[in-house]
Amino acid sequence: MDIKALIREVPDFPKPGISFKDITTLLGNAEGLQYAIATLADHCADLAPDYVAGMESRGFIFGTALACKMGVGFVPIRKLGKLPAAVHTIEYDLEYGTDKLEIHQDAYPAGSKVLMVDDLIATGGTAGAAAKLIQQAGGTLVGCAFVIELKDLNGRQHLPNVPVIALVQY
Amino acid sequence: MDIKALIREVPDFPKPGISFKDITTLLGNAEGLQYAIATLADHCADLAPDYVAGMESRGFIFGTALACKMGVGFVPIRKLGKLPAAVHTIEYDLEYGTDKLEIHQDAYPAGSKVLMVDDLIATGGTAGAAAKLIQQAGGTLVGCAFVIELKDLNGRQHLPNVPVIALVQY
Repeated sequence: MDIKALIREVPDFPKPGISFKDITTLLGNAEGLQYAIATLADHCADLAPDYVAGMESRGFIFGTALACKMGVGFVPIRKLGKLPAAVHTIEYDLEYGTDKLEIHQDAYPAGSKVLMVDDLIATGGTAGAAAKLIQQAGGTLVGCAFVIELKDLNGRQHLPNVPVIALVQY
Repeated sequence: MDIKALIREVPDFPKPGISFKDITTLLGNAEGLQYAIATLADHCADLAPDYVAGMESRGFIFGTALACKMGVGFVPIRKLGKLPAAVHTIEYDLEYGTDKLEIHQDAYPAGSKVLMVDDLIATGGTAGAAAKLIQQAGGTLVGCAFVIELKDLNGRQHLPNVPVIALVQY
């Protein structure tokens, strides 16, 4: 199945000159959604994670479905102030200013194998911060999975030396 | 399986006197997560939806996994300015001020049967707005599914006359 054909490109969003990769057309296609999750699970099977972790909020979309498919638990990485129990926090740079991500300190037992998932990797700022946060919480990062990789932005440079899976590349 | 036993109560979050129902402990439990999704799918099977729609961002957590389990597409209902194509917008009241939700105008064909899902229904403000938005986009709302219902807040009063499923009640 051609996943790329199910992803819509919306010109000039969120600002002029950007061609936004819209995953909602993939999500709305029952077969496409099943195929994307099954293919991610298939490509990540050898990593044998104990948990899948996904970043708010589009990482939640693929993360829980992937965790269910792989038969493991799901760990949400959230924006500042959203998680109710004790957290680890990481601050990272955006184009303008900074942002923060949080993970529960007791999200998983120390040494757990964690697979990180998000819908898209662009410059890799968010993904790099999430990868550090997973390790800060005692997890062993075993891989990073994305539906979409914007290859020219070389986001992989911000990830540690683990397998990186991307279903489609632009 | 006792789903309630897997939901952690965090006192005084997000403010003093509130006992927050923390679903992250359920999500992190592989068997609990599978069971919650399978039970939701089971309870909603007779509604025979064409699509599952979930609200940002915790509705994304259960929505996609439920859509996958039921073999249908997933439609994200997002906060203002996040969806890239043409949208319907609804404004609704919060405790202080107002908020907005959006859905793509072409999220599904007119007349599609749509099941709404979120992690929790409290006062029902968000759920009621999302239900209207689903209909505004031409969908036939066939039911509303929640993992948690805070029964005393009577959120159901804000929902149209469709089946309401809640896995656990407080």
